[in-house]
Amino acid sequence: MDKPAQAQYPIHDLLQKRWSPRAFSERPVEADKLRILFEAARWAPSSFNEQPWSFIVATKDDQANFDRLLQCLLEGNRAWARHAPVLMLSVAKLRFEEDGEPNRHAFHDVGLAVENLVIQATALGLMVHQMAGFDVRKARETFEIPDGYEPVAALAIGYPGDPARLPDRLRERELGPRRRKPLQDSVFAGRWGLVSPLVTEPTPSH
Amino acid sequence: MDKPAQAQYPIHDLLQKRWSPRAFSERPVEADKLRILFEAARWAPSSFNEQPWSFIVATKDDQANFDRLLQCLLEGNRAWARHAPVLMLSVAKLRFEEDGEPNRHAFHDVGLAVENLVIQATALGLMVHQMAGFDVRKARETFEIPDGYEPVAALAIGYPGDPARLPDRLRERELGPRRRKPLQDSVFAGRWGLVSPLVTEPTPSH
Repeated sequence: MDKPAQAQYPIHDLLQKRWSPRAFSERPVEADKLRILFEAARWAPSSFNEQPWSFIVATKDDQANFDRLLQCLLEGNRAWARHAPVLMLSVAKLRFEEDGEPNRHAFHDVGLAVENLVIQATALGLMVHQMAGFDVRKARETFEIPDGYEPVAALAIGYPGDPARLPDRLRERELGPRRRKPLQDSVFAGRWGLVSPLVTEPTPSH
Repeated sequence: MDKPAQAQYPIHDLLQKRWSPRAFSERPVEADKLRILFEAARWAPSSFNEQPWSFIVATKDDQANFDRLLQCLLEGNRAWARHAPVLMLSVAKLRFEEDGEPNRHAFHDVGLAVENLVIQATALGLMVHQMAGFDVRKARETFEIPDGYEPVAALAIGYPGDPARLPDRLRERELGPRRRKPLQDSVFAGRWGLVSPLVTEPTPSH
């Protein structure tokens, strides 16, 4: 199912196509494609090139580890994410390798890398749905994530599936409109809250 | 100057092209293109669709505000960033709008949005260089960023420039190789530190 962003300005096709579905096909994701996703994340920028991201990946052909990761998700997410062929955890390294000082941008830079992964996924016909809804402590224990590292988000990855197979409430959300705040709420100039003249122009007609 | 990622697997052209130069052309960035950058960020995913990102933008045609933002940068960054035609601050909203609870993913989701912006920039022939090196407190004061919001990173944006114009030390870095950790350091399965079989395969020949 396609659900392109109703973009006000002509953003790149991959950014417009990207969204976070809950309906995934059971079709496995080719190992070659998964490698490309990690490689895409690898080349993201980061503060002092620290690359504070790691991933724990579980594909459904390794059922035991897939189930262990699935059990870390909150119940509402397990309901749909169990159909995805690939689950992951993103993990942040909280301190700099060189001097052990806190990395203020650890979570931020995981975000940069994951968005690279997500856009690469879109380019390969895959979809990604990230979840805040997982048990951080359980994930840490299950996968023996050491101190100094923090599980950030859970990711479900796969080919798009049929929304008709979702439970009613989730199907409604799947088919509902995508919403974003207007740019005037978030693009300022000169001082906080002063809308930039760049985004007060009238919307172009399409 | 091009400096494509020496990617081990065939990542998307835009991700391969993206890098963070210090040499920027003085050529102004068209307002239309800046709007598209913000729109690209706008359609990023976020936890509970909170969209915790904001931007403070300063273009060089507004010299006073450009200089105020420039003065927030650490000296080493001011040296090159002053030539870029556009500076920005990314800002995170730290608590959820709905219930005021802390948003664990505030910085992370700013990262997701900013990487959308960066990739969109690449698609438009623009480059982005993010900086951790700025004075957070000064930025907060200068732009009256309220409590509950946190300046995250400074961004220089523009068309690529001539590395020959950089000071010696920076020119060397500009022309030097791009480095990343191998995937085996960051892609695990089953437990932390256990390299995923996905990335232990021999590197494909090109």
